[in-house]
This record gives sequence, C-alpha cells and structure tokens, in this order.
Amino acid sequence: MCRFLAYSGEPEFLSDLVCAPTHSLVHQSLHAAEAKTETNGDGFGIGWYGERAEPGIYRDVSPAWSDENLVNLCRQVRARTFFAHVRAATGTVTSRANCHPFVHGRHMFMHNGQIGGYHRIKRRLEALIPDALYDGRRGTTDSEALFLLALANGLEQDPIRAMAETLATVRGLMRAAGISEPLRFTALLTDGEWLTAYRWACDGRPPSLYYRQSETGLVVVSEPIDGCREGWRVVPKGGTLRARRGEITLAEGPRRCRR
Amino acid sequence: MCRFLAYSGEPEFLSDLVCAPTHSLVHQSLHAAEAKTETNGDGFGIGWYGERAEPGIYRDVSPAWSDENLVNLCRQVRARTFFAHVRAATGTVTSRANCHPFVHGRHMFMHNGQIGGYHRIKRRLEALIPDALYDGRRGTTDSEALFLLALANGLEQDPIRAMAETLATVRGLMRAAGISEPLRFTALLTDGEWLTAYRWACDGRPPSLYYRQSETGLVVVSEPIDGCREGWRVVPKGGTLRARRGEITLAEGPRRCRR
Amino acid sequence: MCRFLAYSGEPEFLSDLVCAPTHSLVHQSLHAAEAKTETNGDGFGIGWYGERAEPGIYRDVSPAWSDENLVNLCRQVRARTFFAHVRAATGTVTSRANCHPFVHGRHMFMHNGQIGGYHRIKRRLEALIPDALYDGRRGTTDSEALFLLALANGLEQDPIRAMAETLATVRGLMRAAGISEPLRFTALLTDGEWLTAYRWACDGRPPSLYYRQSETGLVVVSEPIDGCREGWRVVPKGGTLRARRGEITLAEGPRRCRR
Amino acid sequence: MCRFLAYSGEPEFLSDLVCAPTHSLVHQSLHAAEAKTETNGDGFGIGWYGERAEPGIYRDVSPAWSDENLVNLCRQVRARTFFAHVRAATGTVTSRANCHPFVHGRHMFMHNGQIGGYHRIKRRLEALIPDALYDGRRGTTDSEALFLLALANGLEQDPIRAMAETLATVRGLMRAAGISEPLRFTALLTDGEWLTAYRWACDGRPPSLYYRQSETGLVVVSEPIDGCREGWRVVPKGGTLRARRGEITLAEGPRRCRR
Repeated sequence: MCRFLAYSGEPEFLSDLVCAPTHSLVHQSLHAAEAKTETNGDGFGIGWYGERAEPGIYRDVSPAWSDENLVNLCRQVRARTFFAHVRAATGTVTSRANCHPFVHGRHMFMHNGQIGGYHRIKRRLEALIPDALYDGRRGTTDSEALFLLALANGLEQDPIRAMAETLATVRGLMRAAGISEPLRFTALLTDGEWLTAYRWACDGRPPSLYYRQSETGLVVVSEPIDGCREGWRVVPKGGTLRARRGEITLAEGPRRCRR
Repeated sequence: MCRFLAYSGEPEFLSDLVCAPTHSLVHQSLHAAEAKTETNGDGFGIGWYGERAEPGIYRDVSPAWSDENLVNLCRQVRARTFFAHVRAATGTVTSRANCHPFVHGRHMFMHNGQIGGYHRIKRRLEALIPDALYDGRRGTTDSEALFLLALANGLEQDPIRAMAETLATVRGLMRAAGISEPLRFTALLTDGEWLTAYRWACDGRPPSLYYRQSETGLVVVSEPIDGCREGWRVVPKGGTLRARRGEITLAEGPRRCRR
Repeated sequence: MCRFLAYSGEPEFLSDLVCAPTHSLVHQSLHAAEAKTETNGDGFGIGWYGERAEPGIYRDVSPAWSDENLVNLCRQVRARTFFAHVRAATGTVTSRANCHPFVHGRHMFMHNGQIGGYHRIKRRLEALIPDALYDGRRGTTDSEALFLLALANGLEQDPIRAMAETLATVRGLMRAAGISEPLRFTALLTDGEWLTAYRWACDGRPPSLYYRQSETGLVVVSEPIDGCREGWRVVPKGGTLRARRGEITLAEGPRRCRR
Repeated sequence: MCRFLAYSGEPEFLSDLVCAPTHSLVHQSLHAAEAKTETNGDGFGIGWYGERAEPGIYRDVSPAWSDENLVNLCRQVRARTFFAHVRAATGTVTSRANCHPFVHGRHMFMHNGQIGGYHRIKRRLEALIPDALYDGRRGTTDSEALFLLALANGLEQDPIRAMAETLATVRGLMRAAGISEPLRFTALLTDGEWLTAYRWACDGRPPSLYYRQSETGLVVVSEPIDGCREGWRVVPKGGTLRARRGEITLAEGPRRCRR
C-alpha cells in the first residue's frame, strides 16, 4: 500500500502541498494514519506538467522523508497539475523503475492498491500487453502492468471504460488461477488536463481517497494533509471522480467490475 | 535514535540473530517497540570479525528492511563477534559514512543516543580530536565524533575511563554553550575479543539496553529480538557491561559523568 | 560489454585478485584495455561459495572503483570459488537486479556480450522461460534471460549442450525478426565445483577470454589482471573450458551454434 | 578533476546544452577529451534559477551518463542561468554532499581543480571558516571548503578580491605544511545575475576553460560541447571572466595569487 496526492488548478509550488502541511505526503511517508502500513519508505516519485506536453518526473528509491533533492525540487517546481507518491512495496523490489508515477506520452498514472496473488498471474497479465507498449515497461510492479494494459484498452480515449475492462480482465485471470486475495485499486490518471480518480476493490474495501475543492484548485489525496477532516470529502467506494478546470463529476464505475 | 544488536560467543550466522527472529533487528527497522521512533530507516550497518584482525563492515543508506545485499550477507557470514545497527537519523544526513558501526583498526563502535544541541558544539568537539584521528573522520555524526574523541582519550587501553572522560568533556562543552537538551549515550564497543556496553544519560533516561546469556554466547540488544522479555536482563541505567569469552561483569560507570 | 573474473582453487581472498593487481578488475572498471568500452561503470557484482551450498552475492549500482563496501568485502571474504563482474550496460537500466552474477540455487552465471536487437525479441525470448523460472527473474537484461532459458534447457545437468541449445534458439528468434546485429556470448557458469567458460559469437568475434593455471588455482578473466600476457592462455573462439579441482578440459562448443 | 558548464542568457532548456550536443557534458562524463581523467563518473549536479531567489539543485552519486532523473529534469527545466557539473573525485568519497554545485543563499559555486595535499591542511582550513558558515558544510571536499572560506572573505560583495584572498590563504597553509603539489583552481560563481569564471593555478597549469558568446547567451565550459573549437575562446590562464546580461569583462586576477 502507498500514499499519494494529486493537484489540479492555479499554479502551485509542489512544496506547499507535498512538504509543508502538518500531515503532508512527506510526513505520511513516515506516519501514515489510514494506510495498512504506517511507513511508506520504499521510494517515492513526483510528476508535473511544465512547458512540454509530456510531464517531468523525479523518482528515487530512498525514503521521501530524507531526500534533499525532493525537498529542493518541490520548492522550485510550480505547476497547474502534479502528482506525488510515496511507496510501500508489496512484494516487488525497491527500484526507481518500480516507483510511481508511471508516464506514457502525455499520460501519467499512480496507484495505491494491489493485485492479490500477482506473482501467480504476472506472466499471463504481461502477455496481454501489446509489444509496442511492453517495450516501455521498465519495472516489475502490478501497477505498471495495469497501466500498460489499460493503455492497450483505450485509456487515452475513455479512461473509465478502459480501466473497467482492464480490471475485469485481471479479475478473470485471478479467478482462473484460483486466487482468493482481493484486487484493490485506488488510482489516479491525468493527461495534464483531465484528472481521473478511481476507487474500487473486488471485496468492497478499496484504500481511502479524499478530495478538497477550493476556488483555486482541486486536491485529491489518500488521506487529508492537514491532519483534520474538515473541508475534505470522500470519493465513494466503487466510484470515479473526473475533473477538468474546476469542473468535477462523480460517477459510478469502473462499472463492469463492481461487486 | 536507533536500534542495535551485538553478539559474542560461538560462531553464529548473522542471519540467525539479525534477520530471522520474530522481532529481529530488520523487523525493528520498521517496527521498533521501545524507541522514540518506530521507524529506523535511515541506513544500516553490520560489522564482523573474520580471518583478519580488522573487522569487515557493510553499510548502506537504504532501509534495512528492503536491502537484498544485507539479507544475502547475513546468510553467508558466520562470526564469533558481530555488530548490527539500524539508524534513525537525528539531524545529520543519510549517507554511508554516517551509518554505524564505525571502525578504527581492530575497534568497532556503535551508538544509540544523541548529543543534545550537537550543531552548536560540533566545531569545538571536532577541534578536540587529534589530527591523526580526525583524518579518519568520514561522516558528520555526533556518534563518530564521540568515538574518535574517546580513542584520543585512550579507549583502546581503558574503555570505561576513556569514555567517562569523553562524556565529561562533551557535557562541559554543552554547559558552556548553554545547551539544555540532554546527552544520552547507549553504546557498544569491541575489539573482537572484549565487548563493552554503555548505558548512560545526563538526565537519567538513556535508551534501553538488554542482554541474554546462554551457553553458546551473549547477545546485547536495544530491545529483545524474540518479542518477549523472558531470558532478557536489563543493563542498569548508568551502568556498564563488560564481557569476554562468556565472562560478564556489570559495573557502574562511566563514573565521572553520573548524575 | 563488461569485464569479469572467475577463480577456482585453494581459498583466496577476493581482494588479492579483484582489487590488488596492477590491472585488477576494479582497475578495469575505469580503464579496460581490450573491451569495446574503456569504462565499465554501470554497477558490479561479486559472488562466492562459503559455508552454504548457495553462493553469497553482493551487487550494487555504483561504479566498482568507488565502492567502499566492495573493497571491504573483498578484503574479508576468502573462498575456493568466486566470480566478480563490472558492467557496461548495453541498453538496459543500471539497477542491482541487472548486475551480474545471477544466481539460481547453487548455480551462478555471468556474461560479457550481447544479443543483437534484444528489444525486438525480448517478449518472445521471455515467453520461452517456464513459469517457475520466470518467477525468479528480477531484472530486464538479455544475460539473465539467457541464463534462465539455459536452466530450462538443462544447464544444471549438461552445461555445454544446454547452452548450445539456448544459443541456437536465440539465433532462431533473431533470424525470424530479421536482426542483423550479432549474438556475442562470452560467459562463465559454476555450481561451486565445476567451472564452465564459454566463448562464442555468431560473427566469429566473441569478447576476449584468458585463463592462467597455477599449482594453487585457476583464474579466468576478460583480460589479464597483471597488465602483461605472460602466463595467460587464450580460450579459443568457439571453444569451451571446463575445470574442476585443477583438471582443465578445452572443448569445442557450444557446437550446434558454430558458424 | 571534473568537467562543467555554465549558461547565462535567454531562457534555455538545460537539455539543449547539457545533454543534446555531440560532446555534451553528459558525453564528457564518459569521454572527456581535455581532462586529466577521461571518466567523470563520481556523481554530478545541476543548479538553476527559477521563480525563487535561491537556485534549485539536483545532485546525485550515480554517473551522469546513466541517470534517468537527470535527463528528465534537463528536458523540463528552462532557465536564464544554470550550472552543470560532472565529478571525478580526487580523494574524497562519492556522496551527494560532495557533488557540485554548492549553494549558499542566492550564490552557487562549482570547481574543477584541487588543493594539493588537501588532507594535510584540511583541519586548519576548516578552522578558518566562521561557525555560521561551517554549520552549512555538508560534505568533505576541498571545493566546498574554498567556497565557504571565500564567503567569509566577502565573496558576495567582491568575488574577485575575496577569492584572491582565499587562494592566498590556502597557499599560505600549503607552504606552512611543506606541500609541493600544486593548487589548481578553475571555478564558476553566480548569484543568478552576475557570472564569474576563474582560471588560475600556482604552477601556471590551471584546468581548461572556454566561453562562447552569441546574441542569446553566454556558455562557459571546461571543453567545447560541440567537439570543435570554432566559435570558442579561451579564458586566459590567471584570468577572470565577469559577465552580466550579455556584457563580458576579462580581467587579470585573482591577482595576489598569481605566480
């Protein structure tokens, strides 16, 4: 399990959301309150949209709480849209390539959750990813595999339907392998313009997901960064949040996979 | 604050004490029970005596819980005397040179504690270390500075008196600088033959220290590695434990510095 | 391309062969003389047989020339059989999991060479590795894939035939994909007892391979470690060297793949 | 010895100067042409001025040629003034804190050269740095010590006089210690507005330094980044280059220290 944060709105310095708040993501890397694991020290990553269509990313394997480069970059980078992620590994090694967010062209993706029994279906899951996308696979995580398969399923055109299909496929592989552990999937996707937040689990217990909207922007987080719940709303279980330029839509979905 | 373990006795694989037990040191790196901080993820180190007079050491900046090299080495290395340490940094950077244990010739030292207000007396403390020893300073921690100053004070000849003098000197610097934070010092020293364990603090609150003796060897730890207290004895506050080939002596000291 | 060294004989400290000689492997990491690339700074690894059936390994991503842990371990570890490798990456990332040697049970493998056009056949090559072995894949290199496929082909029972079959299969994939770059394969395999050295390339230009035998042991290297050629013999192109307890056999092979 | 690059002018992406050119700084990290060492693989750093008065920096210990984060950041960051540095260590460890550039408030500094016999005067040199500045010392290099001492000597007010004084002091320490190795100092300083380039050595053999001025900006480099000399001018030995908004002044200096 992991913790993450996404922002979309008026340009903000990353440090104002990622490092400075009382219960910032950097603080959560050591003291997460609502996660299965309190410590999220198996690497981290940030991604942001600057002057190019493709996002910049900085990922490293050290714990977020002790990385000077992270503090420094967050102080310098100001962006309309950015992601930040601290990782608690679930069975795959700590390497840069296994840190979130993952990038494909203009798209950026990060995940908090787990494919139960992943190692037993890894081969079959990877076999479903087309060659061209598989070439871009850099790490070994279930999260990156989900992202690549969803891209193959049309994530760039229809984020909700494509992800629903992807999760249905994975559930199929899990059932075929007789896996009883759950598939849990709380995740964020963006192309720098649209933001899509997913919260779903096959056992009805997806990781937490909150959002807070103000006049200047939208923040989506694993847990409130100010240590209190005021002003924060929950993304409902089994639901999806879509946002663009201050407009927010909550919908059901990924539908086909609901319990 | 940190967590550590020392062993002296019949040759043992490091893994049997450092990795395997329920509440092993590797487990404590993520879930320490009796420390100020639960997470000790700012690097780690092991040191052992093999075929040479000088100990081997392996230190790295990643958290102990995710380092494959550590697991691998602990499985291979078997030794009569070894140290292991997981670090929670207290104001100095995470770097290999700041990880314990520290080695000087045949001597090896590791520390759990802190010089209160260290940054305000760092210069003066370092100025007291003779050139020849200062040349061997690789990091920036208070722990390494204490070790080097104690070496200058005769640590190799008389570990108890030399450390008492060192702590008295540091307390003097602290008082002169008007520092009110405490000096806390739970530490271990060995030359591969003798083992010396210190537990002292100027405010009477030194970090925890336990030992367990069996027919085959002595284990000294920050906290019991089996998750229970049975068979473990406490090194008294303000006390010193000296051991060699199964002979254990508990003494008062470092004397001059007692409250 | 990379540089490596293997030893089999009376117990030797690794430092005496890996670090100390004039043109040691550590020196070759910065100044290789017979390699395509002078610098081999994309990580390194050592592997040795101690008291367990499975070898110990230590691998890291820093250049060998600046790693204190490597120097320290090589000074401490003494073994009858050991491998050492410095890496120059050929298209895959610098990560611990991509560093040689690779271990499977009692077997240890390292490679200097390259599958031409690897990225175009990676998928198909990986698909040939059985699930049980694929589960152990930690990195993304062609070298690890070759090792796993050879294991599937019976490497543990018949190192020469299994590798010949493996290389034939890979050549088949390359031809099917219309790849014109060569397959070059200079490699070493051991189970702690038997040592097998391969030197083959589909274009007749495999990386260099030398050996030197004395009363106390056998050293196999990419290039002589004393900077001169005296006492060193070349493993012929297209040939295989097999050794065990001082007995050396040179044979043709891997046969089916010869030009 | 090291290699570096500085830019001042119309906003440019770092990648256009640091990564893209034929003989870019990243290329020089593996194949420097005019340096004592061809390989500069002991870490790297970039520094740039964005929206804050203080520069952003990103430094790491891996070789520049294999760091994905470096490529990624250089593609995203566009700045009016930036530094980039690849390091070849001369006796001090490879750590982030030993990588250039060094930052103090708005000032940024990087160095290519060496204090001969540094270890013999390190203590005395450090003793001359005032407490407030010494608190900011993070690493152990001669370069950082020179920067801090120069700051104490008024570097922010008068870069040329302050550095001259600093170099004279260091030469004094060297003479007192009977050191015969030379002091060589090719360096760059900026506050985001003014750029100062120094090229001096007590033996008349300072590392190379070139500059190229166009309508849009000034580039100062250890060696030409396009692999040819056309359009590049040499900063004379014993000279100083000062630049601000397209205005360049070449002067003698650091005067007092000239041979």
